[in-house]
Amino acid sequence: MRVELLCTGDELVTGLITDTNSTYLEARLFDLGVKVERVVLVGDVRPDITQALKEAASRADVVVVSGGLGPTADDFTLECAAEAAGVPLEEDAQVLDWLHLRYAARGLSPNPSALRMARVPRGSEPVRNPEGSAPLVVMKLGGAQLFFLPGVPREFKALLEGEVLPRIRATLDARPERTYRAFRLLRTVGIPESELDMAVAPMGPRHPRIVFGFRTHAPENHLKLMAEASSQSEADAALAAVEVECRQMLGTKLFGVDSESYAAVVLETLRRAGATLAVAESCTGGLIAQQLTAVPGSSEVFIGGAVVYSEKMKSAWVGVPPDVLARHTAVSRETAEAMAEGVRDACGTTYGLSVTGYAGPGGGTPEDPVGTVYCALSAPGVPTRCERISVTGDRDRVRLFAASHTLEMLRQHLLAASATP
Amino acid sequence: MRVELLCTGDELVTGLITDTNSTYLEARLFDLGVKVERVVLVGDVRPDITQALKEAASRADVVVVSGGLGPTADDFTLECAAEAAGVPLEEDAQVLDWLHLRYAARGLSPNPSALRMARVPRGSEPVRNPEGSAPLVVMKLGGAQLFFLPGVPREFKALLEGEVLPRIRATLDARPERTYRAFRLLRTVGIPESELDMAVAPMGPRHPRIVFGFRTHAPENHLKLMAEASSQSEADAALAAVEVECRQMLGTKLFGVDSESYAAVVLETLRRAGATLAVAESCTGGLIAQQLTAVPGSSEVFIGGAVVYSEKMKSAWVGVPPDVLARHTAVSRETAEAMAEGVRDACGTTYGLSVTGYAGPGGGTPEDPVGTVYCALSAPGVPTRCERISVTGDRDRVRLFAASHTLEMLRQHLLAASATP
Repeated sequence: MRVELLCTGDELVTGLITDTNSTYLEARLFDLGVKVERVVLVGDVRPDITQALKEAASRADVVVVSGGLGPTADDFTLECAAEAAGVPLEEDAQVLDWLHLRYAARGLSPNPSALRMARVPRGSEPVRNPEGSAPLVVMKLGGAQLFFLPGVPREFKALLEGEVLPRIRATLDARPERTYRAFRLLRTVGIPESELDMAVAPMGPRHPRIVFGFRTHAPENHLKLMAEASSQSEADAALAAVEVECRQMLGTKLFGVDSESYAAVVLETLRRAGATLAVAESCTGGLIAQQLTAVPGSSEVFIGGAVVYSEKMKSAWVGVPPDVLARHTAVSRETAEAMAEGVRDACGTTYGLSVTGYAGPGGGTPEDPVGTVYCALSAPGVPTRCERISVTGDRDRVRLFAASHTLEMLRQHLLAASATP
Repeated sequence: MRVELLCTGDELVTGLITDTNSTYLEARLFDLGVKVERVVLVGDVRPDITQALKEAASRADVVVVSGGLGPTADDFTLECAAEAAGVPLEEDAQVLDWLHLRYAARGLSPNPSALRMARVPRGSEPVRNPEGSAPLVVMKLGGAQLFFLPGVPREFKALLEGEVLPRIRATLDARPERTYRAFRLLRTVGIPESELDMAVAPMGPRHPRIVFGFRTHAPENHLKLMAEASSQSEADAALAAVEVECRQMLGTKLFGVDSESYAAVVLETLRRAGATLAVAESCTGGLIAQQLTAVPGSSEVFIGGAVVYSEKMKSAWVGVPPDVLARHTAVSRETAEAMAEGVRDACGTTYGLSVTGYAGPGGGTPEDPVGTVYCALSAPGVPTRCERISVTGDRDRVRLFAASHTLEMLRQHLLAASATP
C-alpha cells in the first residue's frame, strides 16, 4: 500500500512549527508494516494545495492530509479538495448538528466563521471529531482514498487512532499481497557510524530480506534492521537471525534496543548489581545528573550529584585536597580521581564518577586545550581509573561526549564485573 | 524566488526522527523575505529521490536537499542527482584531499566507504564542510540551483550559515522586485499563549504592515513580529513602532529577543548586579545547573550546584537540619527554604535557589500530589521566599516548569532590586 502525507499551513514552511504530526503517523503506520512514501508540506496557498492533492492522489493508495480545516480565513483545504475532485462544497446537516451540540455544551452558538466547518466536498464522508469542532473528512480522489484531519496534534491523534488507522488496517488485512515487516533498532555508543557500516556491509548478502539503516544521534549511533517478507513469521525469523549476528558483532557497544534510553540502561544495570552512584561534575555542569534523574525511579540508585564549578566547592563538597588543586590544577588526572573518590565517599555509594575539563570556548592550556576532559571512576576493590579524552566541536558537543564517555566507563565496568564469576 | 526543500532518509518517513533541519532553514529564509514553497520528505529509495529532485527543480529557483551524503550504503543522494542530471559521478581530487586531511588529523586514513564521499556529479561544485567529512555540493538542474547538504544538524547548520544562505542572499540582492522584511522574536515566560494572543489582537489594526505570530517553546512563549515593506527602512520603522507597544504590554514577562537564551539572560542579569549564584536541586536533578552551565562563561557567576536526591545529602551538602526533614518531609516549604539558605551558605554566594517536589510518575501525597514543587530563593537582606507550584503533565514537563519557575523567581527579584534606587 502506497501512503503519502500532505501537511498544510504557513506555519509549517516558515519555521514557526516543526511538523510532529507526520512523525507520529509515520511511526504508527510503520508498526502496521507500511512505510510512508512521501511527506509534502505546503503553505496556505490554494493552487499549491490543490496541485499537491492531485499529485499525491495520482501516486498513492492513501493520502492523509492535515491542517486547514478550521474556522479562519486561512483554512481552505476542503475547498482545494473539492476543486481537485471537480465537485462543489456543500453544507452537511450532520456536521451542522455536531457543531451546534458542541457549542451548546459551552452555552454558545456557533458564529458564522465556525459554521464554515460544516461545508464539505459533495460525496465525502464526514466523521465526528471527539476533541474539536472540525470533522474528519474521508473522500475518494482518482484511485486514492483521502483522509482530511485537523492539524491540532490532540485532534489529529484522536481521529487517527479512532478512525484512520483502523480503516487502513482493515484495508491492509483484506489485501493478499501485503508485505509484513519486523523492525529492530540497535543502539550503540563508542563506535563511529562509518565503522558500524563497514562491520555490517558483509552481512548484507547473507540476509537478503533485511534492509540495514544507520542513524547518528550523537553521542549514539543506531543500526536499524528491517525485515520484509510475505508473512509476519517469516519477517520475524529473518529479523531474529540478523539480530543475533549483529549482537555478536557489536558486543558491549550495544547498550539497548528500540526505545531504550542510555540513562535508563545504566540505571537498570546499577540496580541489577545492587549498586548506587554519585557523580561530581565540573565541565558537564549537572548534565550527567540531569540525564540520570530524568528517568523515573532513578532515586533508588542515584544518590547525589555535586556540580563543583569552583575550586572551593571541589574541596568543600567532594574533598579534593587544596594542594592537589594547587599542584595539578582543577583540570587534571589527579583532580578527577580525587573528585570521583570524594563524591563516592561523601554520598556513601558503591560507585563515584567525575568529570573535569575545558568545554570551551574559553580556557584550556597548551597541554590540555579546549575539548580536553578527564573522566574518572572510583569503584570498590580496584584502583580509581581516569581517562583523558579530546572532543572536537563546540561547548555543547564537548559536554555531551564527556558525559557519555564517563557513564560508559561505569557501564563497561559493571558489564565486566557481572561477567566475572 | 521560489525555494523548495527536499529531505531524504528512511528515518524521516518512518517516525524515527522529526525533521528539524527544515524548520531551521525555513525560519532563516523567512528572515530574508523568502517563504519556502514546499518541503518534501522521501525515504532512501533511489527512484523516489531522483523523481523528487526532478520535480522540485522543474518548479523552483533554488532547491536545498539534505541527507544521504554520508559514507554508508544508504547514502546515495548524489547518485540520484547525477542520474537526474544525466551526468556521471566522478571522484573529486579536492574532496579527496579534504577527506585525507580530516582523517589524518585524527591519525587515521579514510576507509573505502569514507572515500565514497569524494564522488560528486560531474560539473558540480563541492565546498568543504568545516564540521564533517561530506562536502556541500552545488549544482544546476534545469533552471534551478541545487544545494546538497549533510543531514547531521550541526553540519547542516554550519554549511547553511557559511555558504548556502550567503549565496541565496546575494542572488536576492541582485533582484529588483524584492520584498523587504524586518523581524523580531519577543521571548516571554509566565504568560500563556492564548493570553498573549488576546493581548496582541487589538494591536493588529494599528499596525497593518505587521504579521503577528506565536510560538510555544515550553516553558516559554514567543511572539513573532514581522514587518513587510518595499524598502528596508520602512520595514524597520514599522517593526520598531510595534515593538515599543509590545514591550510596554509584556513588561518583565519579556526576558529577551531573537536568539537570546533564558539561561544566558539570567546569568547576564546576575553579572550586571555583581552577584553570584548556587543551586540545590532535588526533583529537577541538575537541570537548572545544566541549563546555566551550558552558557559559555557561566563559571564567573555560577559557583556550585548540589543535586541532593537523598535526605542524607540534603543535610551533608546543603545543611538541611535532620529534624526539619523528619518533621516536614523532604518535599516541603521548610526543606526548600533550608536548601536555598544552605546552598547559599555552603558556596558563599549572593543568592541561593532550591527546588524540591514530586516530578512523578511515582510519589506524592494527598496534600502534595505528583506535580507539586516547592521553589525557594535565599537573597541578602530579605527573608527567604518559597513558592509552591502545581505542574500538570509528565516527569519531563514537571522538571522543566519547576526549573523555569525557580530561575524566574531569581530574575524577577533581580529586576525589582535593580529598579529600586
